Amino acid sequence: MDKYADLLNRVRERNPLVHQITNYVTVNDCANITICIGASPVMSHAPEDVVDMVKIADALVLNIGTLDEKQIEGMLIAGKEAGRRNIPIIVDPVGAGATPYRSQTVYEFMDKLPIKILKGNAGEIGTIAGASAKVRGVDSGEFCGDLKKTVMDLAKETGVTVVISGAEDIISDGQRVAGVSNGVPLMGKVSGTGCMATAVCGAFAAAADNNFDACVSAMAYLGIAGEEAAKKSSAPGTFKPLFLDAVYNLSDELFMKSAKVTEYK
Amino acid sequence: MDKYADLLNRVRERNPLVHQITNYVTVNDCANITICIGASPVMSHAPEDVVDMVKIADALVLNIGTLDEKQIEGMLIAGKEAGRRNIPIIVDPVGAGATPYRSQTVYEFMDKLPIKILKGNAGEIGTIAGASAKVRGVDSGEFCGDLKKTVMDLAKETGVTVVISGAEDIISDGQRVAGVSNGVPLMGKVSGTGCMATAVCGAFAAAADNNFDACVSAMAYLGIAGEEAAKKSSAPGTFKPLFLDAVYNLSDELFMKSAKVTEYK
Amino acid sequence: MDKYADLLNRVRERNPLVHQITNYVTVNDCANITICIGASPVMSHAPEDVVDMVKIADALVLNIGTLDEKQIEGMLIAGKEAGRRNIPIIVDPVGAGATPYRSQTVYEFMDKLPIKILKGNAGEIGTIAGASAKVRGVDSGEFCGDLKKTVMDLAKETGVTVVISGAEDIISDGQRVAGVSNGVPLMGKVSGTGCMATAVCGAFAAAADNNFDACVSAMAYLGIAGEEAAKKSSAPGTFKPLFLDAVYNLSDELFMKSAKVTEYK
Repeated sequence: MDKYADLLNRVRERNPLVHQITNYVTVNDCANITICIGASPVMSHAPEDVVDMVKIADALVLNIGTLDEKQIEGMLIAGKEAGRRNIPIIVDPVGAGATPYRSQTVYEFMDKLPIKILKGNAGEIGTIAGASAKVRGVDSGEFCGDLKKTVMDLAKETGVTVVISGAEDIISDGQRVAGVSNGVPLMGKVSGTGCMATAVCGAFAAAADNNFDACVSAMAYLGIAGEEAAKKSSAPGTFKPLFLDAVYNLSDELFMKSAKVTEYK
Repeated sequence: MDKYADLLNRVRERNPLVHQITNYVTVNDCANITICIGASPVMSHAPEDVVDMVKIADALVLNIGTLDEKQIEGMLIAGKEAGRRNIPIIVDPVGAGATPYRSQTVYEFMDKLPIKILKGNAGEIGTIAGASAKVRGVDSGEFCGDLKKTVMDLAKETGVTVVISGAEDIISDGQRVAGVSNGVPLMGKVSGTGCMATAVCGAFAAAADNNFDACVSAMAYLGIAGEEAAKKSSAPGTFKPLFLDAVYNLSDELFMKSAKVTEYK
Repeated sequence: MDKYADLLNRVRERNPLVHQITNYVTVNDCANITICIGASPVMSHAPEDVVDMVKIADALVLNIGTLDEKQIEGMLIAGKEAGRRNIPIIVDPVGAGATPYRSQTVYEFMDKLPIKILKGNAGEIGTIAGASAKVRGVDSGEFCGDLKKTVMDLAKETGVTVVISGAEDIISDGQRVAGVSNGVPLMGKVSGTGCMATAVCGAFAAAADNNFDACVSAMAYLGIAGEEAAKKSSAPGTFKPLFLDAVYNLSDELFMKSAKVTEYK
């Protein structure tokens, strides 16, 4: 566990700049959690601005929660620059599967950008895996039966570290598979906890040596913060500020005491 | 009162998906209150995305708080699809009367879309009623004197359920008129309580058999939540999370004990 | 100190309408702090809408935190109307110096609009001062050595009241220079406290007779509110709502007791 616990200290020492092109619903929470974890957020989406912003960034987070034509243009330009500079690109495919426009945008990103981390819920990742599965002739019903296999296959096929968030988060880089069982159901009653987790994966990826460790650590830390906040509140309104407080106050000692990480392979 | 109190349970059982095209100022609060009331929010505005999103939605909320050309285009496309599918369209005419662009956008929506609920403050609804009144040759000064009559006349003329929020909320479907006197002045000191109420009217309209009952119930429940939150805070910053908590914890028992609904006609 | 303390009462009496074209990250906080200080916010960016909105506004705040082509167009149209009507324009040059697009946008605003207040951090204002300094052949390294001189020179050269926020805020109108040492480090751990301060400078400028007094008063009041909130919370999540509460509860008595304003010249 030490390697996961230690990553938080590295985030705080390095204070990476996490460039986020994200939705206007949860963007403020993403900015604040990025600060609370010890990194620095910057939001910029204009095609005229993103290349120069990527030049000073340590990670690029692309979240399609409220995508449109102009935003996608900015994301692609930023993503290509991030690829040239070899800074990690983290994609949150919000709503993939819900509409074709969202699914196709994610496919376009996967086709054109050197994504390092893909993080979504089971439906979103399942859609993406199912699409590539369909090409491989795999039954999407089968997919639903084994999240771990789906995540690992998708990671192996694409070379991307894949994270499915849920009661147990599943993370794979195609070689290893881990599960993180921290967290509380109340996190699902706050808009944006998924987006916030993606932002934090970006901060950890900027500081870590590999993306698998970064994601396992990030997801466990956030789950632990949720558990801490749930000790003080049982309703979503007051839970959110307490969750941010808990993220701000996280320590590696708390991680060692509380983390529920299972390395399956 | 039973029929109004019971609607909250129906929202929570059905967990309707409320598609919202709204302003970027209060959109996070709208998402969170939609979750807290027991429904699910989805925000999407791109012309390429909204038709498919409306297909899976149970209500469509259009809020012009920070309107622009592209957003209006998305709203009209989404609204037409909602009309084809007969899912309720709820419009919040933020700033109608303050600028011609806002007023004209609302008139365009009323002309082109089968709106079911129109919810604003006295100035906004007054502007809309006054405009149609002008066509009818009615003095807009007279309008100011009798909110109930204005609301009922506008509802009758347009076939839309009209809600004016205020110290006493006035709701009419053209046949019936009700007043809701729940709520506290502190709600007016938080940006977005009006927008949040519109989102919740959307959730109730998706679950209820008629829009009049939906709006009376939604406005009373939110007023009661405000009263509960005001027991714990007397300033806007901490009031808002406590208000969301109270919405999350609402019950029909609390409604039966606290609702101040007057059916005038 | 009386003249500074008294300005809060004038804001609350006059309840100025502060038109803000700002970023989508912190816009909700800007709206809420505007209400808490006793003014009214309105957000509108569409070229079709801003002229009519400026007509009813008492101040115009332009914040380029998430600028793009369309937003800049709206800002320039709004700014020109504000100039015609002689209502104060307050600019927050978020990220000037970080990217050329941001720096150039600020230069364009300074060239085309009758800005009254320019408020940023040391890096942002330094960039702007350095640019004009370069034209004057001044070493930008020298600039870093003396913030007060830089602020005063920039103010004198441009005729704009300049504010650098920091542990000690520096304010100058080219004639006078003041420092404000209120505030707590935790304010720097909340996204948007800088943007919020700019919004409040707008509210004070709308109510005050001169912009220097407005900015000194606004910055001191907000610092005091931060000190009050820090008595109740030591982490950013719960600090923010408590900060808004403290702004709402500010009084001139508290100012007289707590303000740390130094008039250097």
